[in-house]
Amino acid sequence: MAPPTPTRHRKRGHDPESVLSIAVGVFNERGYDGTSMEDLARALGVTKSAIYYHVPGKEQLLARALDRALDGLFEMVADQRAATGTAIERLEWVVRQSVRILIDRLPYVTLLLRVRGNSATEQAALQRRREFDRFISHLVKEAAADGSIRPDVDPALVTRLLFGTVNSITEWYQPARGASADDLADALMKMTFDGLRGRPAA
Amino acid sequence: MAPPTPTRHRKRGHDPESVLSIAVGVFNERGYDGTSMEDLARALGVTKSAIYYHVPGKEQLLARALDRALDGLFEMVADQRAATGTAIERLEWVVRQSVRILIDRLPYVTLLLRVRGNSATEQAALQRRREFDRFISHLVKEAAADGSIRPDVDPALVTRLLFGTVNSITEWYQPARGASADDLADALMKMTFDGLRGRPAA
Repeated sequence: MAPPTPTRHRKRGHDPESVLSIAVGVFNERGYDGTSMEDLARALGVTKSAIYYHVPGKEQLLARALDRALDGLFEMVADQRAATGTAIERLEWVVRQSVRILIDRLPYVTLLLRVRGNSATEQAALQRRREFDRFISHLVKEAAADGSIRPDVDPALVTRLLFGTVNSITEWYQPARGASADDLADALMKMTFDGLRGRPAA
Repeated sequence: MAPPTPTRHRKRGHDPESVLSIAVGVFNERGYDGTSMEDLARALGVTKSAIYYHVPGKEQLLARALDRALDGLFEMVADQRAATGTAIERLEWVVRQSVRILIDRLPYVTLLLRVRGNSATEQAALQRRREFDRFISHLVKEAAADGSIRPDVDPALVTRLLFGTVNSITEWYQPARGASADDLADALMKMTFDGLRGRPAA
């Protein structure tokens, strides 16, 4: 009797989406540079030689994973609601939406935030990230100029601190337990736009 | 004529403090796990065999570097000002002081924030970090209980988001240019305690 063919068997279920999802988990755990094709093969449960059936190469997976995060942010930027209303309304919508995207695409955004520019793929991702940052920075400046956000803090610092707060969620958020995306976005909006200080009852 | 002895020559100037400082720079750039004794020797400008004259081992350097960050935080916790005044006054002092410590010991705090618990040394550092987090969390709860911070956000989330904002500074702050520690602390305090929203003139 022929031996079973575990590799073929295990291959089932590895559509491109699940390959990407598993690979991103490995990248986040071991670091992209510290991940070998052998690590990916092990995580996918295929042999080292079978891995190339699933994955043309590590960097192509990285590019797809980073696009998954960046496409979410740029779809938001292109949305009508990012262009409607006062500057502070648009800024609030964008910050709230960024929290939702971060939680919805948590491993992809986590990976994006660790990119340091070590390859052409990483450079391209950093370029798109800077473009997104410029969009935010522009919104913050507009809101500072019309007086809807406080004038006594440098808008460049506001942009850094505001998205520093959003991005820091990747450091501790666990989807399985804890706050929902909406609760988290509410708490973040209250702290950063209205402030933690208790207000005297009206 | 005997050849010059570059190793001995270069050894001068490598007191324990400069060894630690250079090593932390390498750890932050390459990642602690990705740093070899050879990398450290190269950064110190000594031969691979001479490195053990300066450094008993990589993990001992890591322990000293993490203590540099943690000792700063625990000296603050033990300070009289962390125990004087209302809960929100103490919280504000501690957050502001945390920004100063972060900037004053930037590479050490950066390293601390990347620790994931991969060794006994890392586990010990995580333990001390959790102890610090509990101190903060307790302060936030106290301030929520006496009404000095808003009651409509979960204190555990406030703790996460507040220190997420502080810690995110390590992602972009460049000491050589940009805001001073005080300017940065001011901006962060205004955003998180008073909120970004512009107030109507009184």
